[in-house]
Amino acid sequence: MITENTPIEQLVKLLSKLPGFGPRSARRSVLQLMKQRDSLMLPLAATLKYVAENIHHCSECGNLDNSSPCHICESQKRDRGTICVVEEVADLWAIERSHSYQGVYHVLGGTLSALDGRGPEQLRIDRLLARTQAGVHEVILATNATVDGQMTAHYIAERLKDRNIRISRLAHGIPVGGELDYLDEGTLGTAFQARLPAA
Amino acid sequence: MITENTPIEQLVKLLSKLPGFGPRSARRSVLQLMKQRDSLMLPLAATLKYVAENIHHCSECGNLDNSSPCHICESQKRDRGTICVVEEVADLWAIERSHSYQGVYHVLGGTLSALDGRGPEQLRIDRLLARTQAGVHEVILATNATVDGQMTAHYIAERLKDRNIRISRLAHGIPVGGELDYLDEGTLGTAFQARLPAA
Repeated sequence: MITENTPIEQLVKLLSKLPGFGPRSARRSVLQLMKQRDSLMLPLAATLKYVAENIHHCSECGNLDNSSPCHICESQKRDRGTICVVEEVADLWAIERSHSYQGVYHVLGGTLSALDGRGPEQLRIDRLLARTQAGVHEVILATNATVDGQMTAHYIAERLKDRNIRISRLAHGIPVGGELDYLDEGTLGTAFQARLPAA
Repeated sequence: MITENTPIEQLVKLLSKLPGFGPRSARRSVLQLMKQRDSLMLPLAATLKYVAENIHHCSECGNLDNSSPCHICESQKRDRGTICVVEEVADLWAIERSHSYQGVYHVLGGTLSALDGRGPEQLRIDRLLARTQAGVHEVILATNATVDGQMTAHYIAERLKDRNIRISRLAHGIPVGGELDYLDEGTLGTAFQARLPAA
């Protein structure tokens, strides 16, 4: 039986707090975990504990890693003269998965938001300005294409404009494999304005 | 960065195995967990470990509990003369949440399935037959209203029919709060056939 204080109910409660999980999916997960006690449940417990205790934010860029500076900031193969500014670590992961970028990163930890009352001092913007003092030739603003994301990019561009640094942003346009019929007007409009010679 | 062997990627992989989770939601979960290291991540790790090591299936009914027999089988308030047969522990939990049943349970651990090649020996049916040898006056077959669930109920009813035990099943019909327009034909048909005097 599920009552308030059983360990199973505590586990259901904790799992319910994961994004996309409610009480029902948490209960289903507990039962599946119990069926895979040795292959899934105990390894998950151990890995959660290990990551919680050993993975930290990189003091340079804000990435999550078991060393600080992280292995991207430390790598000899990365171009430290290019900094890609992203909102969250998830964005950094997404860009890494694309294998299209060889510079380093700067994770802001969110966006400016008038609505939520988040100002520049709550993001890692000062740290970014400090990092761009020397040896940086380009800052790529890769915040999300949302109002807050674009506002944040604009704010950072303003703060950097007096320095001798190239400031760029990711191209907007039609996603690879995208069908016009399913695209929103904003994306289509941007793609028209940014059209390129076809040959 | 996510590469094969980092602890973060291992954690993402393990979380991806939870029902309803894919790699993307697992990654989002990891980031949320890292933001709530002390309030969520470490308690989750500890509770997973505790439940994995201390919660077991009840030797009597198959319920999950930290004692065996479980607290339902042990309870003096429950009628041990009535056994409700369910497929999985999740079904037992659902019935307990309804507060509508005061007997004990028997968890089969699945259904018979011709397709998946599951026969009676893979379910806890022998244990059920043993439990119904003495002092049991009613067995309620509460398997799911699926083909396999109903076939399993039918099989168990056959095995029990020579004993002096009342065998019942849950009523089918319109769910409380259900709108006719949204119900399938099977449910509506059953509800018509099982109609009751209105006053």
